[in-house]
Amino acid sequence: MTPAEARRRFASARVARLATADAGGVPHLVPIVFAVDGDVVFSAVDHKPKRTTALRRLANIAQNPSVAVLVDYYEDDDWDRLWWARADGTGRLVAEGSDERAHAVSLLSSRYVPYVERPPSGAVLAVDVRRWSGWTGDTSPLEERA
Amino acid sequence: MTPAEARRRFASARVARLATADAGGVPHLVPIVFAVDGDVVFSAVDHKPKRTTALRRLANIAQNPSVAVLVDYYEDDDWDRLWWARADGTGRLVAEGSDERAHAVSLLSSRYVPYVERPPSGAVLAVDVRRWSGWTGDTSPLEERA
Repeated sequence: MTPAEARRRFASARVARLATADAGGVPHLVPIVFAVDGDVVFSAVDHKPKRTTALRRLANIAQNPSVAVLVDYYEDDDWDRLWWARADGTGRLVAEGSDERAHAVSLLSSRYVPYVERPPSGAVLAVDVRRWSGWTGDTSPLEERA
Repeated sequence: MTPAEARRRFASARVARLATADAGGVPHLVPIVFAVDGDVVFSAVDHKPKRTTALRRLANIAQNPSVAVLVDYYEDDDWDRLWWARADGTGRLVAEGSDERAHAVSLLSSRYVPYVERPPSGAVLAVDVRRWSGWTGDTSPLEERA
């Protein structure tokens, strides 16, 4: 799968999974809703914790910014139809009150109705994507040329 | 969510995501099909690479055995129905030709029809789960008591 196709498939999904790791290399994994803007993936923490580092994903990124974000499609009936797309990059906290934060919240609200009713009030995370990659079970020549 | 409930929800899912990290703490993320046996999660590499360390997940576990495996449920219509369940633990390669490998392949084949037709020929990975955890968007008192 080309990087452009991986990015397209990734951006079309409704849920992804965010992997971070602490300074000792222990991975942490949570599902996220997200929005893609170019080569940046935005997600938000719905409820504001007392400290922004209270959540493991934020504490990990502060210690070790390397992250991976995965989208996948699964069905039991036909494994040829399975696919996944992944964004590997660097995570960072978007500054409170910044234009980028307002932009990210706007993008998230345009994708998810619950965010229109109650915009995310907690931390916003940006992943600067260094590499888009993916795989599909359909290895027909037509698909490979596509 | 209690550890027992997290384990039950996890075991009932059809697809999970495996996070590993290399010695430098760079996370890696792939979807897996799996089977749960007590506090062990088994998954297999479908096609045997030339070297067992050729796949990133296996190379990472050889360097750093800490892993996380996540299952989640998402729908757009009602975020109260979202949930996830996670297994945190230690990954290891199951020895080729061992009873444990035969047992794992049997469990996987009983869950996934494509594995009946073509049993996994590559490496089998075991995750020894240290902690089952989870979250649900439904925070009704009834659910919390369940």
